[in-house]
Amino acid sequence: RINGDRLWDSLMEMAKIGPGIAGGNNRQTLTDADGEGRHLFKRWCDEAGMTMGVDKMGTMFMTRPGTDPDALPVYVGSHLDTQPTGGKYDGVLGVLAALEVVRSMNDLGIKTKHPIVVTNWANEEGARFAPAMLASGVFAGVHTLDYAYGRKDLEGLTYGDELKRIGWQGDEEVGARKMHAYFEYHIEQGPILEAENKQIGVVTHCQGLWWLEFTLTGKEAHTGSTPMNHRVNAGLAMARIMEMVQTVAMENQPGCVGGVGQVNFSPNSRNVLPGTVIFTVDIRSPEQAKLDGMRARIEKEAAEICAKLGVGCSVEAVGHFDPVTFDPTLVASVRKAAEDLGYSHMNIISGAGHDACWAAKVAPATMIMCPCVDGLSHNEAEDISKEWASAGCDVLLRAVVETAGI
Amino acid sequence: RINGDRLWDSLMEMAKIGPGIAGGNNRQTLTDADGEGRHLFKRWCDEAGMTMGVDKMGTMFMTRPGTDPDALPVYVGSHLDTQPTGGKYDGVLGVLAALEVVRSMNDLGIKTKHPIVVTNWANEEGARFAPAMLASGVFAGVHTLDYAYGRKDLEGLTYGDELKRIGWQGDEEVGARKMHAYFEYHIEQGPILEAENKQIGVVTHCQGLWWLEFTLTGKEAHTGSTPMNHRVNAGLAMARIMEMVQTVAMENQPGCVGGVGQVNFSPNSRNVLPGTVIFTVDIRSPEQAKLDGMRARIEKEAAEICAKLGVGCSVEAVGHFDPVTFDPTLVASVRKAAEDLGYSHMNIISGAGHDACWAAKVAPATMIMCPCVDGLSHNEAEDISKEWASAGCDVLLRAVVETAGI
Ligand SMILES: NC(=O)NCCC(=O)O
Ligand SMILES: NC(=O)NCCC(=O)O
Repeated sequence: RINGDRLWDSLMEMAKIGPGIAGGNNRQTLTDADGEGRHLFKRWCDEAGMTMGVDKMGTMFMTRPGTDPDALPVYVGSHLDTQPTGGKYDGVLGVLAALEVVRSMNDLGIKTKHPIVVTNWANEEGARFAPAMLASGVFAGVHTLDYAYGRKDLEGLTYGDELKRIGWQGDEEVGARKMHAYFEYHIEQGPILEAENKQIGVVTHCQGLWWLEFTLTGKEAHTGSTPMNHRVNAGLAMARIMEMVQTVAMENQPGCVGGVGQVNFSPNSRNVLPGTVIFTVDIRSPEQAKLDGMRARIEKEAAEICAKLGVGCSVEAVGHFDPVTFDPTLVASVRKAAEDLGYSHMNIISGAGHDACWAAKVAPATMIMCPCVDGLSHNEAEDISKEWASAGCDVLLRAVVETAGI
Repeated sequence: RINGDRLWDSLMEMAKIGPGIAGGNNRQTLTDADGEGRHLFKRWCDEAGMTMGVDKMGTMFMTRPGTDPDALPVYVGSHLDTQPTGGKYDGVLGVLAALEVVRSMNDLGIKTKHPIVVTNWANEEGARFAPAMLASGVFAGVHTLDYAYGRKDLEGLTYGDELKRIGWQGDEEVGARKMHAYFEYHIEQGPILEAENKQIGVVTHCQGLWWLEFTLTGKEAHTGSTPMNHRVNAGLAMARIMEMVQTVAMENQPGCVGGVGQVNFSPNSRNVLPGTVIFTVDIRSPEQAKLDGMRARIEKEAAEICAKLGVGCSVEAVGHFDPVTFDPTLVASVRKAAEDLGYSHMNIISGAGHDACWAAKVAPATMIMCPCVDGLSHNEAEDISKEWASAGCDVLLRAVVETAGI
């Protein structure tokens, strides 16, 4: 079993870097705080006897050697970057649990055939630079390095420049590494495990996603002196599209979701009808046909809504992944580990995207999920218990050791 | 008649200060550009022989003496501040036309009994510091000076501090001046005069306004892993309120308007349902009962919409004025001036609020309106013709001279 106190202490230590405003974290990717978090993590890995490789996307690979020089490593990781108002566990739990797995193997004198590589993927959140899971996406060959370097934050700074600025641009070619397997431990970010009173989520699938960025063009005009019938109201078009997205998601129950997280009105002045409204729609489903069907319907109905109002409408897909089926052998080894350890468990579909989804394109991959209080995530109040964290980390250790071989 | 070329040249000269990005202006109140515009205006007034007074709100009063030492001045003005993406004429036309009236009186050797005070009211737009018409509101006793000084922009800077920073805090008590009459010449900001092919709008009324700022509190949560039935979706509540505002305005036709210009999602991240949504509703009507009825209905229905979604809802009225009836004698003098000069004219109700609305609380007041192309305003593409500008300025000169007496 792993050392639950040590895991918890490390989580609390990391949470001091890039504190939020309400008990959580703002350690967005490629900020100074991200750099500081990386240094702390590196120090811990150094102390645990691991050696570092960093790729051109800034992903950190910390290696514990195996006994077989020809064996491909087992990768175990997640991400240390957070949302602007993020929690202390989203991603961080997976990285520090992977570190705890190595620390425990050191304590217990466990040597594995395959090396273990504790991994901190860069820019998982995608809050600052869309899309999410950017570095693992480049790793899996889904995006080019140039595409990733050119991604811009709201201030127009690019991924490439900011990576250099914080000093974490490595020299490894992205995706050059080959994996024997990939494990990721992550909080559920949803309410199911807690409601079902299970300690361990055995993740069998991950739902697919489309991020659609709408740019609506209305006529910037005075709110007072522009008669109703003279308006080209992009804000109203947005409101109708938001309601329609809700309807589409509800008509695709169970399992699908749809919502809007980001809205930007321009010029965003009380007495000016917006000239431009940019907003993003996030739709997800575990079923490919439903996912793509929702997208097609939303784009069609949005165009109709806008046409009726005379509003210009363009849509760009700024994020996407297909539904993922995780590797049955690894899934079984997670389930067996939970059973052997006597932890309650259930199968679950990941509602959020994870680096594991991209890793699954290039290696056998799976995930373990930790319950979280009230399903809350992407919220500074995100919470888990030390016992939950430890249980999942125990399962991770067991499944990793089984897969890496002794 | 006034000198139309000189008026136009001054408009073009002023438009060079705080240029926009699409041919208009961004000379928001109490910015450096606002300060620069004030200096240029002061220089022109100096050259025309006027003397300056500045009050504690930063409003500039430029006096041309009258022949009767006991006569109260006739005030003629508008505002030089603009929207963030504003036009070259909104407000500016009224101030520079007032200056042109004095310049023409100098040219023509006209002396009036009552002094003339060319006025540049501070913060008319209210884009940076809500509410609009802030300085004239303090002047009319509608707001206290403390209230005005405490108004904050989106960055948290206060009106009082910014006024000091740009060096335009005067020492006159606000509202200490007494007016014989107040005239304001302004672009219509709506499509009616152009559509009716009239050169002059004789403004008889101004519609009343409520600015309602809604703060909706949802549950910040992950867009992917939060099931639809687990959401407390403040963004969806906003969309429904926006549609409802549209419905309320449409059911109060003709004459009423309602719309949303400003929306702020927090944390405004693609994969986070917003924890807080703040947005402003702008509703207007020339009829008091309709105006207040719309407000009551919107607040009631918004509360119902939010309650259904479990979303918290609070509303603050951040701007308000009642419908205004302008002074019949001054209105008649404007109509007569247009007739004497042979300009086509019609009665019109101002759709936008103006400093004249507050001035009307403390003095006989009225307005003259200039057509504008396609009714466009609060838009950098705002446009008028030199002929229109001159015609209104001719009417202004005639009405002002009649009122100020020779
Ligand atoms: N786990 C997580 O929040 N990932 C970000 C991508 C997503 O929105 O699913
Ligand atoms: N004229 C003008 O745009 N004034 C600002 C106040 C309003 O929105 O009516």
